[in-house]
Amino acid sequence: MVYLTRRVDFCASHRYRIDNLSEEENFNIFGKCSFIHGHGHNYILEVTVKGDIDPKTGMVINLTDLDALLKENVVEVMDHKFLNLDIEYFKEIIPTTENMVIFIWDSLKNLLEGCSLHRVRLYETPALFADYYG
Amino acid sequence: MVYLTRRVDFCASHRYRIDNLSEEENFNIFGKCSFIHGHGHNYILEVTVKGDIDPKTGMVINLTDLDALLKENVVEVMDHKFLNLDIEYFKEIIPTTENMVIFIWDSLKNLLEGCSLHRVRLYETPALFADYYG
Amino acid sequence: MVYLTRRVDFCASHRYRIDNLSEEENFNIFGKCSFIHGHGHNYILEVTVKGDIDPKTGMVINLTDLDALLKENVVEVMDHKFLNLDIEYFKEIIPTTENMVIFIWDSLKNLLEGCSLHRVRLYETPALFADYYG
Amino acid sequence: MVYLTRRVDFCASHRYRIDNLSEEENFNIFGKCSFIHGHGHNYILEVTVKGDIDPKTGMVINLTDLDALLKENVVEVMDHKFLNLDIEYFKEIIPTTENMVIFIWDSLKNLLEGCSLHRVRLYETPALFADYYG
Amino acid sequence: MVYLTRRVDFCASHRYRIDNLSEEENFNIFGKCSFIHGHGHNYILEVTVKGDIDPKTGMVINLTDLDALLKENVVEVMDHKFLNLDIEYFKEIIPTTENMVIFIWDSLKNLLEGCSLHRVRLYETPALFADYYG
Amino acid sequence: MVYLTRRVDFCASHRYRIDNLSEEENFNIFGKCSFIHGHGHNYILEVTVKGDIDPKTGMVINLTDLDALLKENVVEVMDHKFLNLDIEYFKEIIPTTENMVIFIWDSLKNLLEGCSLHRVRLYETPALFADYYG
Repeated sequence: MVYLTRRVDFCASHRYRIDNLSEEENFNIFGKCSFIHGHGHNYILEVTVKGDIDPKTGMVINLTDLDALLKENVVEVMDHKFLNLDIEYFKEIIPTTENMVIFIWDSLKNLLEGCSLHRVRLYETPALFADYYG
Repeated sequence: MVYLTRRVDFCASHRYRIDNLSEEENFNIFGKCSFIHGHGHNYILEVTVKGDIDPKTGMVINLTDLDALLKENVVEVMDHKFLNLDIEYFKEIIPTTENMVIFIWDSLKNLLEGCSLHRVRLYETPALFADYYG
Repeated sequence: MVYLTRRVDFCASHRYRIDNLSEEENFNIFGKCSFIHGHGHNYILEVTVKGDIDPKTGMVINLTDLDALLKENVVEVMDHKFLNLDIEYFKEIIPTTENMVIFIWDSLKNLLEGCSLHRVRLYETPALFADYYG
Repeated sequence: MVYLTRRVDFCASHRYRIDNLSEEENFNIFGKCSFIHGHGHNYILEVTVKGDIDPKTGMVINLTDLDALLKENVVEVMDHKFLNLDIEYFKEIIPTTENMVIFIWDSLKNLLEGCSLHRVRLYETPALFADYYG
Repeated sequence: MVYLTRRVDFCASHRYRIDNLSEEENFNIFGKCSFIHGHGHNYILEVTVKGDIDPKTGMVINLTDLDALLKENVVEVMDHKFLNLDIEYFKEIIPTTENMVIFIWDSLKNLLEGCSLHRVRLYETPALFADYYG
Repeated sequence: MVYLTRRVDFCASHRYRIDNLSEEENFNIFGKCSFIHGHGHNYILEVTVKGDIDPKTGMVINLTDLDALLKENVVEVMDHKFLNLDIEYFKEIIPTTENMVIFIWDSLKNLLEGCSLHRVRLYETPALFADYYG
C-alpha cells in the first residue's frame, strides 16, 4: 500500500465568534480572531489517499482525476470566500482549522474510486495545521 | 553601506471593487477578488533599511527598535483586519498589493533614525509580491 | 478526534562530545559537531496535540493557552542558550535532536488539559528532524 | 523509540508511457507526462528510521553512516539520470512517484544496522509526494 | 513606480554538452550535467514588471492578463519538455540557467502594455538562480 | 550581463557583547544575544556574481569552480564554529549579520575570474538578512 498526497491552496477569510456572547467575551476567548469583519489566510490543503498501485499505470489514482475532484469539491467551494457568510455549513459552525478539516473530509470521503481517503491536513499558516483521519 | 531586511507577517482580508461598477463589471476586471464578502491572505512583509554600521554595536539599526516600529505602525494596524472596512485609507483606495506597499512605505518613511528606508516588499502569496522604493 | 500542530522556533547552540574520549575519538564519532566551542541552529519545533473538538469554541485547545505553555516551558528554557552549558539536563546527556525531543516531550506531557500530547517533532535543519510519541 | 528523518535531494527526468499504446492513448492517460523526450524534477527524499537511542552517543543512527548509505544506494543511482533509460528497474516499470518509493525502500531495507527503516517519502514537487512503509 | 513580481513554475529536462567534444571532455566541463539522456528540474520563474499604478484598478498590470501571457509564451513552451530536443532555440544554445533567462526575457519583452519588463529570475533549484535585466 | 546566485549554508554560533560594558548594559543593547555562552543559527548565504555568458559553455562561471571557492573560503572557515572564539576577525568585531556580510565579501572579492562579485546576502533566520554590494 502506498500513500499519495496532493497539495492545493485557496484563499479565504473567516472570524471566530459565539453569537450569544458579548464583544468582550468573544475577544477573551478568540482574541483578534473575533473581530467582526473577519481576516484571512492562504490555506494550504494536503489530501492523502492510500491504495494499491495499478500495475498498468503505476498510479494509486490518476492525478488528473484527483485534481478535478479537489477543484470541484473543495477549492471552488472555499476559494475567495468569507467562510462564515458564504458557506452554509459554517453559518452555525465556527470555521476553525479543526472544523474545516472535518468539513473537507466529509466533502471528499465518498468520491474516491480505487483508493481511499487517508488524511486531510490543512495549514492555516505555516505555524498551524490540523489533521483528520475520519 | 549595508542593507538589512526584516520579515514580519500579518493576516488580513480584502476585496477589489470599483463602487460605481456593476457586479458583473467588477467580476470582469477583478475575477474572484471582487466577491462582496472578501477573502484573505497570510501577508509577508519584508522591510529593508540601509545605512552605515555603528562600529560600537555592529548594527545598522537595533532590531529591538525596528521590531517595535514595525509592530506599532504596520502589524497592529493591519493584522486581523478587513482592509477595506477597517482602515480609513483603503475605504477609497483598493487594497491591491501595489497600493499596500505604498501605504506601508508612507507609514514608515519618517520613523527611522540613523538609517533610511530602502524598500518595502509585500508578498500576498508566495507567487505574488510588490516592491516599492519610494 | 482531530490532531492540531503548532510550530514555534528557537535558536540555540550545542556540541557533541563524550567526556572520557580524546579530541580525536570524539571527532571520529561526531565530526565537526565535536568542536569544543560548539555551533548552533535555528530549531523548529512542531508540537501535535490530539483531542475532541469543543463544540462551543470549535477548538481542540485554545491556541492562546498552547502558545503560553510552549513559550514558558520550551522556548524560554532553550532559546538563545548553549544547551550543554545552560540546561542542567544536557550537562550529562548529549543534546542530539533525538535526546532533545524526549526532553521537550517530558517538559510538556503533564501540562495539557482537555487534550493530550501526540507528537513532538524537532527540526535541527530542514534536512534533519526527529519525532517522539512518548 | 525515536524516529529520525534525513532529507536528501536529486535531479532526474522521466516519462510515463505504456509501450503498446498509441501516442494519443498515452496522452489520454498521462497528459504531458507522456511526452517522448521526458521532463524532470528536483526530487526531495525523506528517509525515516526508527530505533532506540544509543545511550553513549545520543543517536539512533550515526548521520555520517546514514548519509553515506543514502548517497551510495540512492543519490548516486538516481541523480542526473533519465530514470526510464538509465535505471534497469524502470525500463519495465513506470517511474511514478508511487513506484519510486518502493524502489528506494527496496534499495535501503537491508542496509540498516541498529535501527530499522520506517518510511520513505518522495516529493516530486512541493505539491505531490508519496509515502511507503514497506 | 511599483514593481510587481509573479511566480510560475514548470518542469523540464536538459543536458549540457558541446557537440564537438568527447564524452570525457564534456564531463570535465559539465560534470553529471553532461549525461547524454539528460536530467530535470522543477524550475521556478519570477517575472518582475514595473510601472505606475492605474488609479482606477489599483494595479500595475491585471494579473489575469499577466498570467495568460506567461502561460502562453513561457509555460506552454517549456513545461514538460526536454529543452535541448523540444525547443528550436536550445538545439544550438546550451540551456543553462543563464541562457534560459535571456530566452524567457526575449519571449516576453514586446508583449507588455502599460508597464515594462524589469527582471526575469529563474531558479533551477532553491540553491541556484539567474537574473536578467535585458 | 547576467547575474548568477549560488546558495550555500553553514551552522555557527555567536554572541553580541561589548567588552567594557556590564552584563546588564549588554543585555539592554543586545537582549538575549548577549548571553555569555552564545547561541546559534543555520545561516544561509547567497553569493551573486555578474558577468557575460561564455558562448562556449553558456555559463557566467563554472559552478564547480564557484562551489569550490565558496567551500574553501567561507563554509570551511565558518561552519560549526563559534564565530567570536574561532575566527580571528570576530574576536574584536561583533559578528552581527551586518559585519558578517562584509567579512564574507572581503573573503571572496579577489578570487573570481571572468566575472565579478555583485552581492553577498546572508540570512541569519528566514526573518532577518543583510545585503552587501562592496
